[in-house]
Amino acid sequence: MPKFEKHIFICGNQRPPGNPRGSCDPEAQGRLQKLFKQKLSDRGLKGRVRANQSGCLDQCEHGPTVVVYPEAVWYGRVTLDDVEEIIDQHIVGGKQVERLQLADSCLNTATCEHRPAKG
Amino acid sequence: MPKFEKHIFICGNQRPPGNPRGSCDPEAQGRLQKLFKQKLSDRGLKGRVRANQSGCLDQCEHGPTVVVYPEAVWYGRVTLDDVEEIIDQHIVGGKQVERLQLADSCLNTATCEHRPAKG
Repeated sequence: MPKFEKHIFICGNQRPPGNPRGSCDPEAQGRLQKLFKQKLSDRGLKGRVRANQSGCLDQCEHGPTVVVYPEAVWYGRVTLDDVEEIIDQHIVGGKQVERLQLADSCLNTATCEHRPAKG
Repeated sequence: MPKFEKHIFICGNQRPPGNPRGSCDPEAQGRLQKLFKQKLSDRGLKGRVRANQSGCLDQCEHGPTVVVYPEAVWYGRVTLDDVEEIIDQHIVGGKQVERLQLADSCLNTATCEHRPAKG
């Protein structure tokens, strides 16, 4: 069988309340991942596209964070209301959802404008 | 900043003892992921390569399972003793570790010889 055509990782990290880096899933319910999984199944994509729970993806100031491989497209501040758009436009349609996409300048940097200053 | 050059996802799933699909991390200690993280840091790769905890990657009969993106290389039955070889040969050297690699025929299928029969 082929590999997953798309593999979506959804951060489910928690930090203590008040932590400046925040939490992607403060309720620890995995609601975002479960909704991706359900909507993929509804579209008959189970086994071809996987929505995976993940640990901290380290883009916390832009969370809840989602990354889609193999194309390495990063999304930030993803809500339950965004799931169908990501699936229909990107996963099925092949066109990234630009309004949610994280700029390369915000990835893997300590100096992004969205990161709290270390002091 | 650039995206991660490599993004390694290490399954940390648990199932009840005796479940035929097994558990990738029955002790729930994340030891495999932590060792990847430490060895990457030792090699100065922090920020360029990330070792991420993940939920079930659905290749359970071949667990503990690891997948490396963006190249979508899957490894099965990975032990602590394999971590340095994967990092040095594959992540740094660019050559996949064939002895651990999962065949496409074993990925995402209900009929692989390693899957327990459903009865």
